[in-house]
Amino acid sequence: MPTTQGKNVKKTLIDLNSDMGESFGPWAIGDGVDQELMPLISSANIATGFHAGDPNIMRKTVLLARENGVGIGAHPGFRDLVGFGRRHINAPADELVNDMVYQLGALREFARLAGMTLQHIKPHGALYMHAARDEALSRALVTALQQIEPTLRLFCMESSVTFQVACELGQPVAREFYADRDYDLSGSIVFTRRVGALDPEAVAAKVLRACTEGVVRTVEGQDLAIGFDSVCIHSDTPGALALVQATRRALAKHGIEVAGFAGAAAPAQP
Amino acid sequence: MPTTQGKNVKKTLIDLNSDMGESFGPWAIGDGVDQELMPLISSANIATGFHAGDPNIMRKTVLLARENGVGIGAHPGFRDLVGFGRRHINAPADELVNDMVYQLGALREFARLAGMTLQHIKPHGALYMHAARDEALSRALVTALQQIEPTLRLFCMESSVTFQVACELGQPVAREFYADRDYDLSGSIVFTRRVGALDPEAVAAKVLRACTEGVVRTVEGQDLAIGFDSVCIHSDTPGALALVQATRRALAKHGIEVAGFAGAAAPAQP
Amino acid sequence: MPTTQGKNVKKTLIDLNSDMGESFGPWAIGDGVDQELMPLISSANIATGFHAGDPNIMRKTVLLARENGVGIGAHPGFRDLVGFGRRHINAPADELVNDMVYQLGALREFARLAGMTLQHIKPHGALYMHAARDEALSRALVTALQQIEPTLRLFCMESSVTFQVACELGQPVAREFYADRDYDLSGSIVFTRRVGALDPEAVAAKVLRACTEGVVRTVEGQDLAIGFDSVCIHSDTPGALALVQATRRALAKHGIEVAGFAGAAAPAQP
Amino acid sequence: MPTTQGKNVKKTLIDLNSDMGESFGPWAIGDGVDQELMPLISSANIATGFHAGDPNIMRKTVLLARENGVGIGAHPGFRDLVGFGRRHINAPADELVNDMVYQLGALREFARLAGMTLQHIKPHGALYMHAARDEALSRALVTALQQIEPTLRLFCMESSVTFQVACELGQPVAREFYADRDYDLSGSIVFTRRVGALDPEAVAAKVLRACTEGVVRTVEGQDLAIGFDSVCIHSDTPGALALVQATRRALAKHGIEVAGFAGAAAPAQP
Repeated sequence: MPTTQGKNVKKTLIDLNSDMGESFGPWAIGDGVDQELMPLISSANIATGFHAGDPNIMRKTVLLARENGVGIGAHPGFRDLVGFGRRHINAPADELVNDMVYQLGALREFARLAGMTLQHIKPHGALYMHAARDEALSRALVTALQQIEPTLRLFCMESSVTFQVACELGQPVAREFYADRDYDLSGSIVFTRRVGALDPEAVAAKVLRACTEGVVRTVEGQDLAIGFDSVCIHSDTPGALALVQATRRALAKHGIEVAGFAGAAAPAQP
Repeated sequence: MPTTQGKNVKKTLIDLNSDMGESFGPWAIGDGVDQELMPLISSANIATGFHAGDPNIMRKTVLLARENGVGIGAHPGFRDLVGFGRRHINAPADELVNDMVYQLGALREFARLAGMTLQHIKPHGALYMHAARDEALSRALVTALQQIEPTLRLFCMESSVTFQVACELGQPVAREFYADRDYDLSGSIVFTRRVGALDPEAVAAKVLRACTEGVVRTVEGQDLAIGFDSVCIHSDTPGALALVQATRRALAKHGIEVAGFAGAAAPAQP
Repeated sequence: MPTTQGKNVKKTLIDLNSDMGESFGPWAIGDGVDQELMPLISSANIATGFHAGDPNIMRKTVLLARENGVGIGAHPGFRDLVGFGRRHINAPADELVNDMVYQLGALREFARLAGMTLQHIKPHGALYMHAARDEALSRALVTALQQIEPTLRLFCMESSVTFQVACELGQPVAREFYADRDYDLSGSIVFTRRVGALDPEAVAAKVLRACTEGVVRTVEGQDLAIGFDSVCIHSDTPGALALVQATRRALAKHGIEVAGFAGAAAPAQP
Repeated sequence: MPTTQGKNVKKTLIDLNSDMGESFGPWAIGDGVDQELMPLISSANIATGFHAGDPNIMRKTVLLARENGVGIGAHPGFRDLVGFGRRHINAPADELVNDMVYQLGALREFARLAGMTLQHIKPHGALYMHAARDEALSRALVTALQQIEPTLRLFCMESSVTFQVACELGQPVAREFYADRDYDLSGSIVFTRRVGALDPEAVAAKVLRACTEGVVRTVEGQDLAIGFDSVCIHSDTPGALALVQATRRALAKHGIEVAGFAGAAAPAQP
């Protein structure tokens, strides 16, 4: 089980997370590869119905995670199915936290039905990015989590205000490294509307370098030291399965094991 | 605390339940009397977002119940806001149970945030009536509840297949008496599109008679023995507040106390 | 342009319709073959947002139809995205007609924006099947259409009450033949949850026989005379593209042209 | 019929508009005064289902307007029922225009069913304010209207970019004066979360002064010249009925008639 490690420390264990259950009703997302991806990851961020996912898919996805020994987390989004939670909605922090509490509970009940407990929570898309920048939202979210479950791990970026607030209030976190997104020198990921798929070997090399050297090459062309506890590869990135497979091969070759966050979580520390 | 009592036994305690939190976004339901009604009831069936209610309203309603010492339960409905969960949707039992698990969890999380536990679950409207008649749905629901929380009290009618299945599988129940609905000789309630409001004194007298004599006058004009543990008065019945006030006065006058289901629930028995 | 032809008459022209624009937000339906299918059909039933489709997809689909000279029709469904309009919702006929009027207008506005007019309307899924059996709904729908646009062609089955009511009230129709569904001796299609894809050559042969001999082999094993003006192949049937291609080849080989309903529609006649 | 009049010109005719049909399913908005308000206004902005309203309410509201000889317009909002269209959603202009085209058509079809034509379109809430400031959205909207119906009147503020773009492209407009909102010196309305209701006589006096002197007192305490063709009083402002009644009395006393925009609309001019 990975602990929150300092930068520039070669990892021997790493969590690998991906969004799961992002279909809706009759519609499958991306290449529809949940079945193939699940055995290859250690943490599943399960969509909770506001941006994607529905109760039937949530139940099935929780069971699929259980079969594969994968840790599960709630992946709440803005209430915006048609926009897939990728459009910012201008709402007060407390209302957005209520939306997340609702979705968190919905997934927790399916976990309960399956005899599982939740490992983490990770806001989705525009809500994640909004929390990363908005202290009021991060504070309201972490404060609610402290009341609900002070040991629930919150996924966030090291460069985010979410991380800072979680450290301050003592909520455990998992800092993420985005394998399929570009970074800028602020340590934040850059949103681009990519045309075409990513090269699996390039993605694998990027993850490997981050795991062994603790750095990532930014869009500005410089290396940036980056601290992380989990690698995220989005399941709706075209060719996601190949990206994850190549990444796992590269990690295995260098003796780095993929593993989730078993056991009790400790409060975050900066 | 009332226990599941036999018919024709004068009650000294009775639960009084009402649907709460059935507003949505900017819209209030009925006379908007949740604030006034809550102190007068002992069990609140809180709408969970599919037929009414939203995360903000759920949070506020849970807190209102806590302030008033009222037991809370999930009130899941068909996914049909525009129809207020009153239109039957033809779906497989397992899908409907998944919808209910989702909604149950959503409310439980707000309870958790408020330091409360759930007292009960009561399906809403057309879903309640469907479960009352459909053994597959009742069985799938109770089976799920047995896995999730075998002590969670399920509200149902004594004449329903839901009650039978709960008894068979050992899920605790609260049998309901509908103060603002008519009964027929089958023991089921009769749906009528009433014009005009009900007479509070008539409703109070009907409840009192049920509590003291264990019978209700049916639409056919005969008395029917009826077993129940909770009296339901719908908050969206016109003049609901007056109905509840009159009922409480009548009960108090005859030494019958209104109280919820504190403590652990015992399995249902026929 | 095909006219409403009697049974057992060899056709030289036939309309070929398919459901188009049934994606939603980020999700594509079936094999996502709208682009490939559109050039092969003559009538597009465009989803109007209640069971599938959204404003962006509707606009794009209307333009795709215009590029390919395909007639467009509204394809309104039950308000049930998660169920894809395949679950019956128990609602009064006038409310369902209001839902259809709403959706019809939404599509008509995109047609107007594209300089097109609507060719037809075809209710979707469970709503189509409900109208086929329920005279109140068919009558309310056709009555509304008579007021709105008495020349708008209504797609329906010859065996349906919809067809009878349209004939009685004088609304033009196109009777459909379902290439990818089985028939029973009542002339109605049989709903089965098929496992596996259909054989394109068998489907093509079935359509060809219907066009040349006016009969279809039923599940009971007997031939049934069937009158129709349009052949429907569902775009979400697995391998839909291959089915349409094989059908077109078979029709072409026998000199039967695929063409939509250009020009003004005449009232239906039994 | 009022024409687009210059500032500081005493009016003898004025349009009075209000939002109508903003209920949803079982829920009524505000004081639920559509029935009482409709006879007192000349233009009804009818909610079209995305922020409020549903097909049944739309049909009823169109008929209510017809009975009262009131001009009708589409009142499209952000797709956000729970937020009542008051929360900004960050979406591309073309997608928002598609949302508005969809909603416009939906209402137009109910008008068609009632034998009416649409008089105007007025975006709702956050969408109206976004268009007022965002040239890309106003341009995309007016461009679409030019294709769809270049004579459809667009409601907007004189201080808005919407007004400028409509003038440039030749779409007719009605400039609005907000009786129940405060103005600042920019000529824009100020959003405040008012506590308590407004004084009907003060509102009436404000409208009367705007109609006779062409000025409004701003929150800064200075008078601002304001050009307008229609007075808006929101139906969900507490006590809306009293505000409209007082305003009509004041207008009548000074010989100013309330009338909508009958006849063909001329292109806007600055």
